[in-house]
Amino acid sequence: TIRALFKQIFAASLKLQQKQHEDALLVSRARKPEDTVVAVGSVRIGGGTPVIIAGPCSVESEAQTDAVARVIAEHGLGLIRGGAFKPRTSPYDFQGLGVEGLKILREVADRYGLKVVSEIMTPGDLDVAVRYVDIIQIGARNMQNFALLKEVGALSTPVLLKRGMAATIEEFKFAAEYILSHGNPNVILTERGIRTYEKATRNTLDISAVPILKQETHLPVLVDVSHAAGRRDILLPLAKAALAAGADGVMIEVHPDPSVALSDAQQQIDLDTFRRFMAELKTAAPAFV
Amino acid sequence: TIRALFKQIFAASLKLQQKQHEDALLVSRARKPEDTVVAVGSVRIGGGTPVIIAGPCSVESEAQTDAVARVIAEHGLGLIRGGAFKPRTSPYDFQGLGVEGLKILREVADRYGLKVVSEIMTPGDLDVAVRYVDIIQIGARNMQNFALLKEVGALSTPVLLKRGMAATIEEFKFAAEYILSHGNPNVILTERGIRTYEKATRNTLDISAVPILKQETHLPVLVDVSHAAGRRDILLPLAKAALAAGADGVMIEVHPDPSVALSDAQQQIDLDTFRRFMAELKTAAPAFV
Amino acid sequence: TIRALFKQIFAASLKLQQKQHEDALLVSRARKPEDTVVAVGSVRIGGGTPVIIAGPCSVESEAQTDAVARVIAEHGLGLIRGGAFKPRTSPYDFQGLGVEGLKILREVADRYGLKVVSEIMTPGDLDVAVRYVDIIQIGARNMQNFALLKEVGALSTPVLLKRGMAATIEEFKFAAEYILSHGNPNVILTERGIRTYEKATRNTLDISAVPILKQETHLPVLVDVSHAAGRRDILLPLAKAALAAGADGVMIEVHPDPSVALSDAQQQIDLDTFRRFMAELKTAAPAFV
Amino acid sequence: TIRALFKQIFAASLKLQQKQHEDALLVSRARKPEDTVVAVGSVRIGGGTPVIIAGPCSVESEAQTDAVARVIAEHGLGLIRGGAFKPRTSPYDFQGLGVEGLKILREVADRYGLKVVSEIMTPGDLDVAVRYVDIIQIGARNMQNFALLKEVGALSTPVLLKRGMAATIEEFKFAAEYILSHGNPNVILTERGIRTYEKATRNTLDISAVPILKQETHLPVLVDVSHAAGRRDILLPLAKAALAAGADGVMIEVHPDPSVALSDAQQQIDLDTFRRFMAELKTAAPAFV
Repeated sequence: TIRALFKQIFAASLKLQQKQHEDALLVSRARKPEDTVVAVGSVRIGGGTPVIIAGPCSVESEAQTDAVARVIAEHGLGLIRGGAFKPRTSPYDFQGLGVEGLKILREVADRYGLKVVSEIMTPGDLDVAVRYVDIIQIGARNMQNFALLKEVGALSTPVLLKRGMAATIEEFKFAAEYILSHGNPNVILTERGIRTYEKATRNTLDISAVPILKQETHLPVLVDVSHAAGRRDILLPLAKAALAAGADGVMIEVHPDPSVALSDAQQQIDLDTFRRFMAELKTAAPAFV
Repeated sequence: TIRALFKQIFAASLKLQQKQHEDALLVSRARKPEDTVVAVGSVRIGGGTPVIIAGPCSVESEAQTDAVARVIAEHGLGLIRGGAFKPRTSPYDFQGLGVEGLKILREVADRYGLKVVSEIMTPGDLDVAVRYVDIIQIGARNMQNFALLKEVGALSTPVLLKRGMAATIEEFKFAAEYILSHGNPNVILTERGIRTYEKATRNTLDISAVPILKQETHLPVLVDVSHAAGRRDILLPLAKAALAAGADGVMIEVHPDPSVALSDAQQQIDLDTFRRFMAELKTAAPAFV
Repeated sequence: TIRALFKQIFAASLKLQQKQHEDALLVSRARKPEDTVVAVGSVRIGGGTPVIIAGPCSVESEAQTDAVARVIAEHGLGLIRGGAFKPRTSPYDFQGLGVEGLKILREVADRYGLKVVSEIMTPGDLDVAVRYVDIIQIGARNMQNFALLKEVGALSTPVLLKRGMAATIEEFKFAAEYILSHGNPNVILTERGIRTYEKATRNTLDISAVPILKQETHLPVLVDVSHAAGRRDILLPLAKAALAAGADGVMIEVHPDPSVALSDAQQQIDLDTFRRFMAELKTAAPAFV
Repeated sequence: TIRALFKQIFAASLKLQQKQHEDALLVSRARKPEDTVVAVGSVRIGGGTPVIIAGPCSVESEAQTDAVARVIAEHGLGLIRGGAFKPRTSPYDFQGLGVEGLKILREVADRYGLKVVSEIMTPGDLDVAVRYVDIIQIGARNMQNFALLKEVGALSTPVLLKRGMAATIEEFKFAAEYILSHGNPNVILTERGIRTYEKATRNTLDISAVPILKQETHLPVLVDVSHAAGRRDILLPLAKAALAAGADGVMIEVHPDPSVALSDAQQQIDLDTFRRFMAELKTAAPAFV
């Protein structure tokens, strides 16, 4: 019918406009077809070889951090993650060691030739953070902390931006656009699961976000399997799925003794489990950085 | 069976522990049975008489703000809301007038004897904000901006805390606990809808959160009907429902000419619609402040 | 800009087409402006006076059903609900008394002059059901059981259609359209909460659905507060909110001794609590049928 | 503290009981450690070699079905899917060819030596269905159509059970348990995406469900990438991810000319795209049945 025809024309026009609008964004692959590669030391994120970013949820001590760093270095990986400023639901939970934690991370990382990824939660901490951190993580709860996005946009330090727990893929892209439009092109997108009704996992890993973000943006895309799952027993299949779907790498929480961890005890894996994880993942993808 | 009996005992024990833990919170009604009343000038929020907080989504100009303020004062209401720092999905959208907007709000509010509610998005803006604002709003995207929560916790200015768009009621309470535990007891909880699959409304107003928060905490509870609905045509029934469910008041966006508004054009109502809204709401609840 | 103007034109055109499409539906108020009133005996649902439909989750025995029916009649209410065919997550849970349950319901209802609402789950049970039931309930899990919808559409018995637990308001309207388009105009829509991430309640009552359904359709709209809440302590404020939002009535589960109920033990209220519920609800709305 | 210790004991006890309860289910891997393999002709689903189930959303004509079947056979695949009874949101949408569609499917499938998968929506259609269909599909909307589950449980025909669009993994297992407990052990679980707030995809593929279902049950697990995505451009990465996560196979909708398809026009792929899909998928997994 004529009516259906008009409807299709209108819908197509709208979609086209929407697409043109999105294509104009700095994050858009239409605007910059080649992949952005974020280089940190010798590690190249988004350069074709997947990265594994491992480390404890929270930096708790020098010994704990060193134990994890040693295993990371043992596998030839170049990055360590660890939380010094911790976003915790309750004010009475462990809030992280703060700057002291950053110092431990830096010292241990330097010992093993690793680069440091750590979350910063507020603009006021950026000045000190850039002295210790190689990649600034913006956590899920701060994906739309626009003041923070603008501030890291004014830096040149790479930014690992996590998807908010109820953010749409479109909002995620716009959050990255805040950073790029303020001058910092070194943004790494990280899918970490979204909040749904399903409670078998802590969050629902939105695996479809990986190919969509790879198509629509030129930025590297990682998957944080630990926060997505919230349980240890499915981390390996999720990591395999992430790489199979085209992710540029995987984040995973590792702790020498998860049962006494000060945060995320349920989802961190111990050192031996991490060794097995790496061994089995190599069957899926041969090389990591 | 024995097994089922043990299960009930275990479950009951866990629930009891959970309850004891929650009862120990500063926000908990178990700890402070009497209602907290947040007094701002002559307005008492949580004092038994519902409040209506109206105003434009964004402060756009002195004339626009004045037009709304006049109608608010006309109805004997004591509060005006207006955004000066605007959290916007895209960096290319109108970001608010900033401090200039706060000054306009203050000047217009003083002209009509109103108190000012306005959102602050980052700790760095608090110093200037407290000079112009009577109630600091923490928006949904910042409900777990813990650095910001701690900072407003160190002030005595009342805080209107909005529920995050995917926050559980429990997380909402803990966010308020951050503020109380840092010393500021003047917190107003505001339900503004949660993000669900339903797209007929911008968010899904979780009306059940109202009686639950009233039972479990001693804090005033408001409902922001404009952000919940994202459309004008159901604001009145939602406001009636909110008050019927026990809310201490309602927030609503009002603009002299919504069609040219710089933000939230779809959900703001014009001045005449607001007058009708107030008239009809009075049939549901006789008095407002 | 021209582009933005075209976008608005396209969007408006699409919206208009969508509206015209929806206005053409049999359920649409645009097509039939006056309210549909479903009459069952002397009870008129949708006729301006709210109805309260109470009764046990499951019919368990004649004595249990009689005890509830007596209290219903005591309050001058004309309807009793009770489950004979029970949709249960596990095959090992109590599946209802089946036809035996319908017979008990009928007998007890006749004793007190009540009309019977009971769920039917499959077309094969309709023949026997219509002998005992005055209003056939289609449960949330069967909202899109299209074979069942078509079959009840071929009957003249009124149908109480519950919203699916992840159904959009639009899908809900189309489910009703299945019934109307097969010839049965006597449909009562019932909002019973949708599934979200929030776990403080069993489901999230979508209170906005009430005014939207009242605006867009001519059918009566009820709210099932028991399944929405999944807990007893907020049923009264939810019922008040439902009526304030414009609902034509409320469904609530009542059991003489909820602690031994064979289903939904957590959310049913006992007889005395029901008496208090009715007393307090009368302050919100003076008369019920 | 003592309190925290007790809490852990209680929580562990509850979890243990829950686990014991689930381990007792017929679907549970604890009860039957070895994988269930559903054999249909020479195709073995769950036997280690992944299956690809392709075919049109709806059977529209003999020619259309034949065109798809030829390409399926060309790739050495043994199964064709096609809808004859279609669950459609609107009663005015194409409802499928019904029995006529089943006959076309059977005839075409026999021509190419394929086995037939087709959805049955109501118990009344089972008698005729078993004459034409090799695997009965229970769609997402009927996952908790318990009467239908019981009826297919009484057959020996294999059942492909799709996860409901808002079903938890636990509810999904219980739905399968209905079938097994009524006597039919040949159940294939199919993840097809769940409904969330994200609109970039039709549903959110819950990739975590794959390893969880493989661990907790002994049943084969497939992934329907077409309904999960609702768009064509990410089907290949989703299929790769599904297999990498441990799925026993993938379902995908194929149509000779999707633009004129009577249903799901947006997500079906044409024959050439399907050929490329198969070619590229073979780099991820070498053999399919």
